Amino acid sequence: MAQAEPTSNLFDRRDRYEALMDVMRTRMTNRAFAQHDIPNEHFELILEAARHGPSGANCQPWHYIVVRDPEQKAVIGDLFVEEQQTRAKLKMGFPTPNYTGMRTAPGFIVVAADFRFIRAFPVLSDDSAQAKMYEENAERILLQSVAASTMSAHLAAAALGYAVWWVTAIGQARIQTVVKPMLDVPEALSLVDIMCFGPPRKPSYKRWKKQLHQIMNWDRFHPANFMTDEQVDLWIKEARHKVMYKDESKID
Amino acid sequence: MAQAEPTSNLFDRRDRYEALMDVMRTRMTNRAFAQHDIPNEHFELILEAARHGPSGANCQPWHYIVVRDPEQKAVIGDLFVEEQQTRAKLKMGFPTPNYTGMRTAPGFIVVAADFRFIRAFPVLSDDSAQAKMYEENAERILLQSVAASTMSAHLAAAALGYAVWWVTAIGQARIQTVVKPMLDVPEALSLVDIMCFGPPRKPSYKRWKKQLHQIMNWDRFHPANFMTDEQVDLWIKEARHKVMYKDESKID
Repeated sequence: MAQAEPTSNLFDRRDRYEALMDVMRTRMTNRAFAQHDIPNEHFELILEAARHGPSGANCQPWHYIVVRDPEQKAVIGDLFVEEQQTRAKLKMGFPTPNYTGMRTAPGFIVVAADFRFIRAFPVLSDDSAQAKMYEENAERILLQSVAASTMSAHLAAAALGYAVWWVTAIGQARIQTVVKPMLDVPEALSLVDIMCFGPPRKPSYKRWKKQLHQIMNWDRFHPANFMTDEQVDLWIKEARHKVMYKDESKID
Repeated sequence: MAQAEPTSNLFDRRDRYEALMDVMRTRMTNRAFAQHDIPNEHFELILEAARHGPSGANCQPWHYIVVRDPEQKAVIGDLFVEEQQTRAKLKMGFPTPNYTGMRTAPGFIVVAADFRFIRAFPVLSDDSAQAKMYEENAERILLQSVAASTMSAHLAAAALGYAVWWVTAIGQARIQTVVKPMLDVPEALSLVDIMCFGPPRKPSYKRWKKQLHQIMNWDRFHPANFMTDEQVDLWIKEARHKVMYKDESKID
């Protein structure tokens, strides 16, 4: 018997699981950072994690641009502050975060996606409704892939002890048109996210998370876990601003 | 001085980073599993990881349904085999994986998303072009959120020692119409992915990953990391089937 370890232990690696959960539980968002020199090696460690992410057709359609120039960070941060003002003028009622902390985030990584790789997924080249369905599906697979890689980077930054901030850039036209030329990003790529990280200026706190039974369903979907349209609207009106910004111990 | 630990150590937690990377490096895809009883507790441990995922507006728009009935697994697996046959008939040229292994995957979790929560993101309620732009953006934020949570679950399964398989279901109409009623999933929710896991039937192997310098760019995008349209097409033609299915040691 070459294999000494019994199967039951092989697939019950609690030590590894607990080490992983220690990182996941302490991955916390913060939107204001203390000044800190991030060693170049830390950027490499963080993107080494991103590199191992899974992707549709294993096409790895992600590019990460480490921004170190304070002026470039300020330009990008200001675009989000501008977006914040646009939302306020449009009276969206969205409790937009304060984006000013982006300007001085010690760790600043722009995430770009190469959507041309949807051609590597199951797609058709005609203009049928079926082709459109497959193309939309392919875009979603690609976006999920980039998110899985980006999540790996966030976990790596959290493992090192940093607070993190996942800022979504995708779809915001001004960010695409201003930032792509500034960072020499080819037109064919899309800026999807900005990853900010660093030591928090004030201590991070854990946000509210649903209880396990609210997201976990045995054998079939449990009706108690479904929210009606009215409950969704009520949640947006009464809970959203609290769960976005408050410590979970302060959410009843 | 209450704080004994110097700042430099606080943000250089190599022990935590190495423990995380040990899991990330050994997260490997496999598409055929050995028979194994997954303890219910393992499903809980895996979804405990998913629970801590980040999400836009902290809305946690995910639901996980653990499928344990072999007949239900077979129904879902057969839908993907059927999809495989559809793709073959459409002559997509996509090297579709063999989905038969889904039928008997010991760990089988259906991932559903509640896209109604895009209303919790910055959106407008009119029918302007601007409203459409914000809505598309919101859908992408929601999909990224679900992917980040699902990735956490995959890492937890990998930590325990299991091989994993991330199957995308989104957009496939037959899967939505057959599986939602079978699992009592309300019409308002969307089936996004199936997460399969278990002990591999044959040993898993590491897929090819790009080198760090191919995805990491200092200060500006490095032109050497850009592929022309012709290079993308060539990659699809000549590299895709290898990087999807072969051990990375066999990719030149």
